[in-house]
Amino acid sequence: MGLDHAATKPHEQLAAHLASKMEAVNTLIRARMASRHAPRIPQVTAHLVEAGGKRLRPMLTLAAADLCGYDGEYDVHLAATVEFIHTATLLHDDVVDESAQRRGRPTANLLWDNKSSVLVGDYLFARAFQLMVEPGSLRVLDILANASATIAEGEVLQLTAARDLATTEDIYLQVVRGKTAALFSAATEVGGVIADAPENQIKALFEYGDALGIAFQIVDDLLDYQGDAKATGKNVGDDFRERKLTLPVIKAIAAADTEERAFWKRVIEKGDQRDGDLEHAIGLLNTHGALDQTRQEALEWAARSKTALAALPEHPVRQMLLDLADYVVARVN
Amino acid sequence: MGLDHAATKPHEQLAAHLASKMEAVNTLIRARMASRHAPRIPQVTAHLVEAGGKRLRPMLTLAAADLCGYDGEYDVHLAATVEFIHTATLLHDDVVDESAQRRGRPTANLLWDNKSSVLVGDYLFARAFQLMVEPGSLRVLDILANASATIAEGEVLQLTAARDLATTEDIYLQVVRGKTAALFSAATEVGGVIADAPENQIKALFEYGDALGIAFQIVDDLLDYQGDAKATGKNVGDDFRERKLTLPVIKAIAAADTEERAFWKRVIEKGDQRDGDLEHAIGLLNTHGALDQTRQEALEWAARSKTALAALPEHPVRQMLLDLADYVVARVN
Repeated sequence: MGLDHAATKPHEQLAAHLASKMEAVNTLIRARMASRHAPRIPQVTAHLVEAGGKRLRPMLTLAAADLCGYDGEYDVHLAATVEFIHTATLLHDDVVDESAQRRGRPTANLLWDNKSSVLVGDYLFARAFQLMVEPGSLRVLDILANASATIAEGEVLQLTAARDLATTEDIYLQVVRGKTAALFSAATEVGGVIADAPENQIKALFEYGDALGIAFQIVDDLLDYQGDAKATGKNVGDDFRERKLTLPVIKAIAAADTEERAFWKRVIEKGDQRDGDLEHAIGLLNTHGALDQTRQEALEWAARSKTALAALPEHPVRQMLLDLADYVVARVN
Repeated sequence: MGLDHAATKPHEQLAAHLASKMEAVNTLIRARMASRHAPRIPQVTAHLVEAGGKRLRPMLTLAAADLCGYDGEYDVHLAATVEFIHTATLLHDDVVDESAQRRGRPTANLLWDNKSSVLVGDYLFARAFQLMVEPGSLRVLDILANASATIAEGEVLQLTAARDLATTEDIYLQVVRGKTAALFSAATEVGGVIADAPENQIKALFEYGDALGIAFQIVDDLLDYQGDAKATGKNVGDDFRERKLTLPVIKAIAAADTEERAFWKRVIEKGDQRDGDLEHAIGLLNTHGALDQTRQEALEWAARSKTALAALPEHPVRQMLLDLADYVVARVN
């Protein structure tokens, strides 16, 4: 933790440091989610955008640009772009997962319908695309186009790997890169590109975002088996009930004996879940050290993200980003 | 009709004239719909891409570039882009409309599931985005970003206007511009832009595509009330059963007396449809001349598209595009 801000969380420090920029991002988001012809669009979007997320991804873009000395205005466009892509992804995810709640509120697909979530998601992708064209940087467009493809590919891979006990750690990593890390790394990378930073710094920003995103998702998946709902806002067992092959389960299955394998087959593959199964599953995760190993991997990715930042200049924001990496894994450490 | 090809349809003439380019487009589409990690993606995409559509939209891009003397290779990228956007839109449309058939075959949402259609659609948008960045033209990206937003906005507008008897002809036109004309006009416009054509020609290509797309959609909506399924591949009454406010119905409602209004309210707004209602509806459309007026509007838009082409140079492709405008409305004339 930075000495000056021992009591403040790193994302709050970033938000304070970037306050005027973040205000500009929020103004731009509100302006661009409007629709002259279809009032359903801002209704659905506002439900999600105003739900009080931490705006971590746009903040990463602003932080990266600031860290590289950018003094223009297009970081705001790119930060809004990143948030729109994230929001569009959430809308489509909730349709695919048939979710009823997000951030403790009913999802858009429940409040309106799946159709609205699909089409408003498409609209937000298109709005993101318009925003990202405005800075006039082909390199930025290339990065965001590639990230979009990685995200979508990761989502499809997650869908086809779902409930498949043969899912490996490699496939898990591919899915996590798609669903989470690709947007983190694109967010930090475009911040460096728009600031015209040296190549080694741009590469370091990509690596920071990539590793931070992976750590973030692994922690999320770990909390699903050992979190405290009050502290983390996650309900233990959601992934289990949705029969997701996350890292702790993949590790436990790899170490399973015949009887345990039959258990995983029944609860994950066949979806035949009974009272006490979640507790039994958590027992198996502990028996094989799967939770500890998963925690260890999250810590390693966080450490990797911090190492990448060594290439960036001394700057208050650099310290906040280092602290952020610690904070992301602090929830499970 | 062109004198040399009196027996050939204009889109077939275009396909013959642009055969080697279209082959390159098909090769590029197949290459880019692949996915190293998620085999579900090419399966779903191939089902739609290989279904034997006319490839009208990519052909328009190639034709526009050819007409403006383009001799590079990026028209192929942009044509593939346009087809990917179209395919992605179809995948999402079928989820939103809960369709079971398209082009006489079961839809992807039926063969796989809605989830696959949503996510593979997103992947194709992302692939389209990658493709369109490659020519390195910010103006092309701007056009396609704006078209994407218009398409999505039109789709949401159609959703919220559905079953609403207050839908006006203005709203109908807005929806049609979104769901159909925006991609036609972007397809022709980017062909001119990539060829570095003079501004007045680029504007004319946009206007041609816009008017052609509107004529195309009005004809489609008209055939839904008076088509011959064998000749047109459309089933009479689909829009009626789905309670869509298309132009013929909007015109008939505007001219309805109290009793007729009650009928439309029952069948469209409330969805209470009984035996004989479709026939009664068609009777009302005829009584008020709604089908004739709709046909007249389609002809006017086709004429407008031909007028726009006056700004383009003499060229065999120009004649084919003129013929195409006639052909699009010939189905109802």
